[in-house]
Amino acid sequence: MYVAVMGCGIVGSGVVRLISKNREGIKKRRMTDLEVKHILDIRDFPDSPFAELFTKDFNDILGDDDVKVVVETMGGLHPAFEYVSACLKAGKSVVSSNKLLVSQKGYELLQLAKDNNVNFLFEASVAGGIPIIRPIVQCLAANEVEEIAGILNGTTNFILTKMIVEKMSFADALALAQKNGYAEADPTADIEGLDACRKICILASIAFGSHVYPESVYTEGITSISESDVAYANDMGAVIKLIANAKKISDDKIEIATAPAIIFRGSQLAGVSDEYNAVLVRGDAIGDVVFYGKGAGRFATASAVVADVADCAIHLERRKYFGWDEAKENYVSDYGKHQQKFMVRVETDDAGAVRKVFGDVRVLNRENAPENEFAFVTPVMSLDEVKRELASLPVTIGNIIRITDY
Amino acid sequence: MYVAVMGCGIVGSGVVRLISKNREGIKKRRMTDLEVKHILDIRDFPDSPFAELFTKDFNDILGDDDVKVVVETMGGLHPAFEYVSACLKAGKSVVSSNKLLVSQKGYELLQLAKDNNVNFLFEASVAGGIPIIRPIVQCLAANEVEEIAGILNGTTNFILTKMIVEKMSFADALALAQKNGYAEADPTADIEGLDACRKICILASIAFGSHVYPESVYTEGITSISESDVAYANDMGAVIKLIANAKKISDDKIEIATAPAIIFRGSQLAGVSDEYNAVLVRGDAIGDVVFYGKGAGRFATASAVVADVADCAIHLERRKYFGWDEAKENYVSDYGKHQQKFMVRVETDDAGAVRKVFGDVRVLNRENAPENEFAFVTPVMSLDEVKRELASLPVTIGNIIRITDY
Repeated sequence: MYVAVMGCGIVGSGVVRLISKNREGIKKRRMTDLEVKHILDIRDFPDSPFAELFTKDFNDILGDDDVKVVVETMGGLHPAFEYVSACLKAGKSVVSSNKLLVSQKGYELLQLAKDNNVNFLFEASVAGGIPIIRPIVQCLAANEVEEIAGILNGTTNFILTKMIVEKMSFADALALAQKNGYAEADPTADIEGLDACRKICILASIAFGSHVYPESVYTEGITSISESDVAYANDMGAVIKLIANAKKISDDKIEIATAPAIIFRGSQLAGVSDEYNAVLVRGDAIGDVVFYGKGAGRFATASAVVADVADCAIHLERRKYFGWDEAKENYVSDYGKHQQKFMVRVETDDAGAVRKVFGDVRVLNRENAPENEFAFVTPVMSLDEVKRELASLPVTIGNIIRITDY
Repeated sequence: MYVAVMGCGIVGSGVVRLISKNREGIKKRRMTDLEVKHILDIRDFPDSPFAELFTKDFNDILGDDDVKVVVETMGGLHPAFEYVSACLKAGKSVVSSNKLLVSQKGYELLQLAKDNNVNFLFEASVAGGIPIIRPIVQCLAANEVEEIAGILNGTTNFILTKMIVEKMSFADALALAQKNGYAEADPTADIEGLDACRKICILASIAFGSHVYPESVYTEGITSISESDVAYANDMGAVIKLIANAKKISDDKIEIATAPAIIFRGSQLAGVSDEYNAVLVRGDAIGDVVFYGKGAGRFATASAVVADVADCAIHLERRKYFGWDEAKENYVSDYGKHQQKFMVRVETDDAGAVRKVFGDVRVLNRENAPENEFAFVTPVMSLDEVKRELASLPVTIGNIIRITDY
């Protein structure tokens, strides 16, 4: 079965090499023989062992009836969206690793796939190679999924791990991540939480059945996390992680957010270190299941892409049922009103006033804290309420970090 | 689509209730409408809300052409094997949670399913509700699986957790497990490792492509683990877990074992506590992935069964490709020759003699150790060699526990 690959960057080149390397094994395991016929890229790769497969003309793929499955590993919205749409309309199944594309255009593309009786699969768009989309759809099909929470961005998890384990500052940890190739020169999408947000949108769309757009989701990165926050979390027996999570409230309402969160040690998510990812899925029958592994990297991500390609090849004549409805109005609840506990760090000369307002709070300690620093755990309340109460007090806010029970 | 359930114990009754409870959701997610038509059990259930579905006659199921999928949750080899065989021959797909059946008769039953163009699925037979079989087959299809290691028995993991965290003795921890319903009155199959062994045989069969019989696998339970072993492991920064693992050496040779193992803290498997299960899969593209969750329990296990039932319903007319070859001769290597490190605990008045034989070993310490107790870490060597060396020394062997790098 002939395959075309659009975009020969890290993941795309991994896909080409993995299909070539494990072709016999895939044939044995999945009864389908995969072969890459075209590779689309605007760059030249004269030294590639696959040099003769390269083209700069998308029509070489679109017009080739032998090509039944097209891989999109270009990234970005355009022209990925136009190319994928054209392929689906031409009766080709498409496999994508592009979380931006799926989080923004997933509903439209799934509809296009349905209308043209082909498949649009994107296991690699969330948590790299870790199997998560197919397990939710197939393996947990007997469950009502109640909640999903994940460490979905390896860059920020690497940075936070260095801050927790080696007491590095955020700036030093970011610099190290860049040096090690875990963070890009412009790390905005990672450290501001945008990347993790796109991924939880995809998971929420699948698990709860309606498209969720990243724009509708409260998103906070890790740039505000200080070494003192890490130390106070440690005093609670906890760590700080960038958590993207979504919870079903009713058929018409979900809670969803991407923001730092305090996670108690002993939880499976707390033990996820360095550049690793993990996704916790809470189902009404299964309870909590956690999927852990590498969330990025050439071959880890290619592993998920190629598995989808094999699935498309097997399902050429019979579409897999897989999709979700369009976005619902007022579906995403206001994050400021979510009821939860928070760790609050303030500067104040009047901790007594803070205690008077927040009640009998748990006070946190760290070594070498300035005398006017006060950190505590709030009762269950909303972020709006926390901010309103703090605004009435003689304090300078240091940070406010939610506490989760994952 | 009509379903029959054979065996209405913990799991079977969970299947009936889960299909009833989540029928609408399953219909929406998987486009298949499941309904239980018969429940086979030799017992009477006059107060069950499903009382009118019960039968004591297997032929009520076998002869009913409306029933396309049969669930086997009876346990045991007989008559489960005969009933499942008869159903497959009659053109019915079968879903089983029975690890004894699959580990002993998997190859035969998969062949029967193939010959009759139906499906035989058994996700629930390993690690309860945790998705593991389908992810290996489908999601990791692009990988050559190199190694699998799991905590596959909740009872023993509960006991070891109590020994590690609460410093309980084995006997007290076993009694607590029985009191809490995690261990049966006769706990032999759990504590002697037989249950975990059956499960790793199923995983090895799937991952490496040839049937592995439990009888061919070195199997050691946890009854020899003492509080002193736990303490010495702690001195290494590690914990003791019952690990079932399998590793591909070549197309014609695997290493496989079920035995206690020392796992360093910080590893994902080390953090798996209480009655939870986890499976680590090491693939050539993906690296390590870990699947974690409840390995037993009514609804967790039923979750996996019902997902398989839905998959059978969707694939009524088209068989899923899924299976393995028959057992190979000399396929399982001799465990006594596996090269690894060991923690050795002995009684001796001449630790110097031990050191002379084993070289510059790492010596371990614990509080309140008797003066003649000596514990150390061997170099990489085989269990046969360790035993041979010890036999030549003036020592009484306390325990020999392998050390893994998972």
